[in-house]
Amino acid sequence: MARIRDRLEELGISLPEAPRPVAAYVPSVQAGSLVFISGQVPFSEGTLLASGTVPGSVTLEQAAAAARQCGINALAVLSDHLDGDLDRVEQVVRLGVFVASDPGFTDQPKVANGASELMEEVFGEAGRHARAAVGSVSLPIGAAVEVEMIVQVRD
Amino acid sequence: MARIRDRLEELGISLPEAPRPVAAYVPSVQAGSLVFISGQVPFSEGTLLASGTVPGSVTLEQAAAAARQCGINALAVLSDHLDGDLDRVEQVVRLGVFVASDPGFTDQPKVANGASELMEEVFGEAGRHARAAVGSVSLPIGAAVEVEMIVQVRD
Amino acid sequence: MARIRDRLEELGISLPEAPRPVAAYVPSVQAGSLVFISGQVPFSEGTLLASGTVPGSVTLEQAAAAARQCGINALAVLSDHLDGDLDRVEQVVRLGVFVASDPGFTDQPKVANGASELMEEVFGEAGRHARAAVGSVSLPIGAAVEVEMIVQVRD
Repeated sequence: MARIRDRLEELGISLPEAPRPVAAYVPSVQAGSLVFISGQVPFSEGTLLASGTVPGSVTLEQAAAAARQCGINALAVLSDHLDGDLDRVEQVVRLGVFVASDPGFTDQPKVANGASELMEEVFGEAGRHARAAVGSVSLPIGAAVEVEMIVQVRD
Repeated sequence: MARIRDRLEELGISLPEAPRPVAAYVPSVQAGSLVFISGQVPFSEGTLLASGTVPGSVTLEQAAAAARQCGINALAVLSDHLDGDLDRVEQVVRLGVFVASDPGFTDQPKVANGASELMEEVFGEAGRHARAAVGSVSLPIGAAVEVEMIVQVRD
Repeated sequence: MARIRDRLEELGISLPEAPRPVAAYVPSVQAGSLVFISGQVPFSEGTLLASGTVPGSVTLEQAAAAARQCGINALAVLSDHLDGDLDRVEQVVRLGVFVASDPGFTDQPKVANGASELMEEVFGEAGRHARAAVGSVSLPIGAAVEVEMIVQVRD
């Protein structure tokens, strides 16, 4: 019955504990059927996967893997928001992907694909989203990538 | 009857073919009455209109023209989403405009006006939107500008 | 009866006049119950509170104060949108915070807290929002911070 949970298991993805609220913002807010997920950085088991700008300090491949981890963390927040029932996801609506970039680095889309492909692997057609991927001079705590998400859910 | 199509003709704007989906994201997603359009770069007939940062490699005027082209491409995606019926547009809600900027360049609003004025020319009052315009160290494929859009539509 | 107006008074916050529309965009657009507020810069009585990048030209503390001012300006726009009745705010949904950053500056979250904490002070639980905070190479008119906002309102 837990279709998406089974799919995550098939993919070998175990969702981490959702990050705790930091300061005066929260990991997720729902307005109507839209859930807004705060910008996620590529923490994995307490460690930042990729730190610094691409490609000077972080390779394209490392950055794409970090984007995937941001996506996994966003799914952890979403799962928490939905009391674990990811089958309530109707559609992933939009990803905003910020890539810490050296001047002249223009492969942000390849980095962002790390998060985008995750959503399609997990949700299939319902994971295909609109996206904006851009370069950023620097990101919180030195993260190489930050991903925020809007998801439509059903009751 | 096709009021907006007529208006585009009056303005001498012919919409290009909407860009094909690249990787695991799509040009547009609708959630309720909101259509989210992915970040558009200033492609025109297969060529990037403006490449590099403003003002080092691209003048303010070129960048504003590129922003307008991003807007035209966003309208092409929207038209495709609405099966060609742009008269279903209720309101352009928000533009997100990213301008590839040299350090110290602070005229992002003038660049973004290229896209904003297009929306008002095409849709009149319904084209007046909320906006965030910011500088970016570098953008996908070297584009000088990237524009994403949220539009409210009726059935 | 004007609960939020009283709360602003308690906090010693007087809302400025909402900024006038500039060019072909507007300070706020409502779609359904969501109000989208355009990116605000830290103007206070006609003067930009903080100009340039953090930390080279602007300290962390100055930038956080500027983020708070951006938030105050966003509330001024929202108040104007709601004909002065901020009690119609159901939930602050999302803040987008752009911080003009020198390469290597990674404390954008601390800067963004200036705006986030304001929302919680003013609206309590309803002020707790999703957030994306990122670095930007440079921002409109040299602002050190830009804040945009999505708010859910009731009739």
